Amino acid sequence: MGLLRDAGVVYKPVEQIDLGPCSNESYFRADKAPRMAGFLLKIFAWFLESRIIGALLLYIVKKNNQVHKLVTNATLVEPPMFVPLHPNTELNQQEVKQIDSDASPLERVQEAIKCIPVTSEKSLDYLKPSCFRRWTIADYSRAYSAGAITPLRVAEHFIDAVRESCSPPFPMSFFINYDAEDILRQARESTLRYERGNPISPLDGVPIAIKDEIDCSPYPTTGGTKWLHKVRPCTGDACCVLRLRSCGAILVGKTNMHELGAGVSGINPHYGPIRNPYDPNKIAGGSSSGSAAVVSSGLCPVALGVDSGGSVRMPASLCGVVGFKPTFGCIPHSGVLPLNWTVGTVGILAATLEDAFIVYAAISGELPSHKPTTLPPKVHFPLLKSTNPMSNIRFAKYEEWFNDCSDEIRMCCSDALNLLCEHYKWKTVGVTIPEIESMLLAHYVTISSECSTSLSSHMEKLNFAEIGWDVRVALRVCGAFHGKEYIKAQKMRYRQMQIHNNIFAIADVIVAPTTGRTAYSIVDDALKTGEVDCINGAALIRYQIAPNFLGFPAVTVPVGYDKAGLPIGLQFIGKPWSEPTLMHIAYAMQALCISDYRKPKVFYDLLNKN
Amino acid sequence: MGLLRDAGVVYKPVEQIDLGPCSNESYFRADKAPRMAGFLLKIFAWFLESRIIGALLLYIVKKNNQVHKLVTNATLVEPPMFVPLHPNTELNQQEVKQIDSDASPLERVQEAIKCIPVTSEKSLDYLKPSCFRRWTIADYSRAYSAGAITPLRVAEHFIDAVRESCSPPFPMSFFINYDAEDILRQARESTLRYERGNPISPLDGVPIAIKDEIDCSPYPTTGGTKWLHKVRPCTGDACCVLRLRSCGAILVGKTNMHELGAGVSGINPHYGPIRNPYDPNKIAGGSSSGSAAVVSSGLCPVALGVDSGGSVRMPASLCGVVGFKPTFGCIPHSGVLPLNWTVGTVGILAATLEDAFIVYAAISGELPSHKPTTLPPKVHFPLLKSTNPMSNIRFAKYEEWFNDCSDEIRMCCSDALNLLCEHYKWKTVGVTIPEIESMLLAHYVTISSECSTSLSSHMEKLNFAEIGWDVRVALRVCGAFHGKEYIKAQKMRYRQMQIHNNIFAIADVIVAPTTGRTAYSIVDDALKTGEVDCINGAALIRYQIAPNFLGFPAVTVPVGYDKAGLPIGLQFIGKPWSEPTLMHIAYAMQALCISDYRKPKVFYDLLNKN
Repeated sequence: MGLLRDAGVVYKPVEQIDLGPCSNESYFRADKAPRMAGFLLKIFAWFLESRIIGALLLYIVKKNNQVHKLVTNATLVEPPMFVPLHPNTELNQQEVKQIDSDASPLERVQEAIKCIPVTSEKSLDYLKPSCFRRWTIADYSRAYSAGAITPLRVAEHFIDAVRESCSPPFPMSFFINYDAEDILRQARESTLRYERGNPISPLDGVPIAIKDEIDCSPYPTTGGTKWLHKVRPCTGDACCVLRLRSCGAILVGKTNMHELGAGVSGINPHYGPIRNPYDPNKIAGGSSSGSAAVVSSGLCPVALGVDSGGSVRMPASLCGVVGFKPTFGCIPHSGVLPLNWTVGTVGILAATLEDAFIVYAAISGELPSHKPTTLPPKVHFPLLKSTNPMSNIRFAKYEEWFNDCSDEIRMCCSDALNLLCEHYKWKTVGVTIPEIESMLLAHYVTISSECSTSLSSHMEKLNFAEIGWDVRVALRVCGAFHGKEYIKAQKMRYRQMQIHNNIFAIADVIVAPTTGRTAYSIVDDALKTGEVDCINGAALIRYQIAPNFLGFPAVTVPVGYDKAGLPIGLQFIGKPWSEPTLMHIAYAMQALCISDYRKPKVFYDLLNKN
Repeated sequence: MGLLRDAGVVYKPVEQIDLGPCSNESYFRADKAPRMAGFLLKIFAWFLESRIIGALLLYIVKKNNQVHKLVTNATLVEPPMFVPLHPNTELNQQEVKQIDSDASPLERVQEAIKCIPVTSEKSLDYLKPSCFRRWTIADYSRAYSAGAITPLRVAEHFIDAVRESCSPPFPMSFFINYDAEDILRQARESTLRYERGNPISPLDGVPIAIKDEIDCSPYPTTGGTKWLHKVRPCTGDACCVLRLRSCGAILVGKTNMHELGAGVSGINPHYGPIRNPYDPNKIAGGSSSGSAAVVSSGLCPVALGVDSGGSVRMPASLCGVVGFKPTFGCIPHSGVLPLNWTVGTVGILAATLEDAFIVYAAISGELPSHKPTTLPPKVHFPLLKSTNPMSNIRFAKYEEWFNDCSDEIRMCCSDALNLLCEHYKWKTVGVTIPEIESMLLAHYVTISSECSTSLSSHMEKLNFAEIGWDVRVALRVCGAFHGKEYIKAQKMRYRQMQIHNNIFAIADVIVAPTTGRTAYSIVDDALKTGEVDCINGAALIRYQIAPNFLGFPAVTVPVGYDKAGLPIGLQFIGKPWSEPTLMHIAYAMQALCISDYRKPKVFYDLLNKN
């Protein structure tokens, strides 16, 4: 004992930490290993899977990533916090509408619609004539109601477009499964309802895609793998899908994703790399890659994803759409692959904040039978159409962290934030958020341990040839954590919760870029093996973790493009159950940027198809 | 991968399990390794602590104890439940008094007293003239108020008695620390209060001892070790101790315990083996050994312990006193050594149920600042003096488990239960509680992982020569669990919660003996090294785990003696927050047994000292 032991950090008491902008807490991030793909990755995976050398390699990997120093051997007095559930206390939120949590999805959607300004033809006049915008739920609903087009016709356009997207030279690999017959059947039923003059809701006939991590009949739930659906058959709709179905939405198939959600590139060796509609040579981000890409390319106004480590917000940002991750526990998780239990939540990818808001209204709210007392008695909706925007919003901005991104992102996000603050007389507050790298590692230990527990009973029956090489590496590393490391990570969760509570005592919302870089290239050597690219991965995940680890809501809004024309997102992170404030802010940000939105290279206009 | 792998159990869905008395779920317990102490134990510890052989030995230990089969490689669909917190729903409890949770300890004690029948001289007439009873809080309070004796005189008697208990041939090793000056100072203040006619409460001047796992000024908190107090100085009273102090109780010192609570014998190589007042050659049980023994021997009417795996109920049963473990989260845990976070709670050892009840009233109730919404809005007290005993109590009895104890315990506990049912027209319901051995292991994985996390930052600085050999073995085994094993244990926690919820749907209370055997002998070879005695340990711990792992309240009441004159306890386990029902039943059981209570061989009468 004691041999080879790395000294651990001794974390000081939270109350002694200066969270102000001039704090002497230093911003730190660990160096990352270089990229591996192709043959090199195979060799690495082989060694890692061998018993003796593998154990040594794992030790080196953990040591190099500072796991020993920052987590395993760290000293901290905090008790563990295992689940980031927060009581839904009455927040003092301005301009919100309360809706009983036992309202049906339908009733909630109707209430939500009332909170949104009517986007009439006229109200679009303020957009520049040349400007691009995607069709929204309201556009579909209005077009159907006016008889300008039928859901069936849209479904046919959709099916044609997906087929087109699969063709060379750049098959976009949006979907893992879609069933033309099932889509047409739903579309016919919806068309009938419109013909009879009684559509169920504004979502009736609207095409919505579902990440292949969420159960949706009649499809298997592959989780991006070639095997998981064989050992875990899908037996029906997940709760959130069922709620959308009950509102009349057309569920158009299961979107492609990073295998098991175990990466951020969306390069899936089994179902093809998901390509970015803004540049098919680039990644779409991940792991809800396909859900972001189908929204970006105009195939659906909304898609569902799952966000356990930024998996909704990262691809949303890289594909130039809105990505919304609600408070932990806000959307029922039943029917979602149990790849983890304490960090993941269903999230929404949408063309506009309003659409994310409508779908959030439809799918949020715990199941009555599962409702613990810590969950929301009421759902609060922001009045987006309010003529009195919220006053006195304070944005917490940690300069060193905010600026730890590409120059273009830094400038674009700063400009957007400044514009927002000037326009609404809102303020930024300089802060220091300490121990971000420690939190990243603690989150990694947590999600890894939970994922490997979830998969453990399948692992022995598994044919490893059916798993991508990058995921083989991930699974081996994921399974390497000790019970003590897992519990220590939970102690760090409690500690970060205290730190963030202190931040939220002086600010309403934390603001940061969504990612540290824009979409990067899909390199050929990764197509068959996947890739392990820790440097680019770290740049994408840098701003993601607090909402997952601590259960906070967060939203990313497109605010611009880099020189290559790739989208840039700005992220707002709120305190638990502050969705109304967060949406209000994101809506205000969107309103200032939407007229500059650019059309992706790959785009399908389902309402006006030639 | 796959080499050496033991096949895991596939647990069937809970709804398919027959919990009735004729279920085909078989009662199973794993074989245990033989006893080790002295030189053999040292050799074993040395091997275990070596890097390579130790790893192999650990594997064999885990395999032999069926950890791989029942936990590590098991397949079960349940999500993890990390903390057994239960909402304090309005139970339909008869004959209870509600008290606001923001009442002071003093107000609560006063309310509690009103719920208890007055034990006047006259009311004791029903006791046989020859019968033995210990002095209660009411006896002390009455004697002080009547001027029959002063708290100061009692304190002097106490100090003399403790000194006497330390003398050969059998030093009882009750205390790790007691400070005569501090005791006399408190006693003088209490005496003054009585002289002025204004005692604080019925607890004023009552001697109460505290397990050395709970902070209590001016003492260090050793946890039964020679080192822990050096790295974790005690900075003041634990919340529960402060509440007792605020009621005027005299805190008479820190009771001896099994080192780190890591065993059930109470054989502490540093502070001496705690001896059983009924037979000083026998163990007192553990780990709250000293707290049970001081109550049993008449030194205190009440003492506090901590129950993380039966550590209050086992020694209470072996020493012939009442042991009460409340619902998880009911008593603030601040100021208790953080040896675990999800299974332990402060418990009460007392001469009578009434006294356990009064002290429970004094120390229960979350701190206002820490109060999550899942904690009790109200405290419910049973009206023990009610002339209408609760009706229609149904006891769940799992015959095979109930009977898995010595013949004498089986007969004694069955007789007591029958007497109770006949007297009150209560009923037993035959049930099957499946997977008890799996639950024991899952609890062991949980408490072990948490304890080793808690101690991990101290371990590197530790001089192993300062640790008992049995605890060295325990620490090595405790630290051996993987993150996946810990999380799988939490999945089993959720599963057992469902199973027990189903049991509690058909019965109010689970009844079983408290231990599978009575106190066993202290063997000389264990005095310096401690011992690892898995067979006797398993017999003691057999009925303990559900209340710890699932957060249920439980109480043990003395119901008789074996042929050697050693006490036997009967245990009642209730659903969360059912303390009133549980206390009502235990009080009824006590009333039927108290006239047969026997005086221990080692006994001190502080109110009538010669």
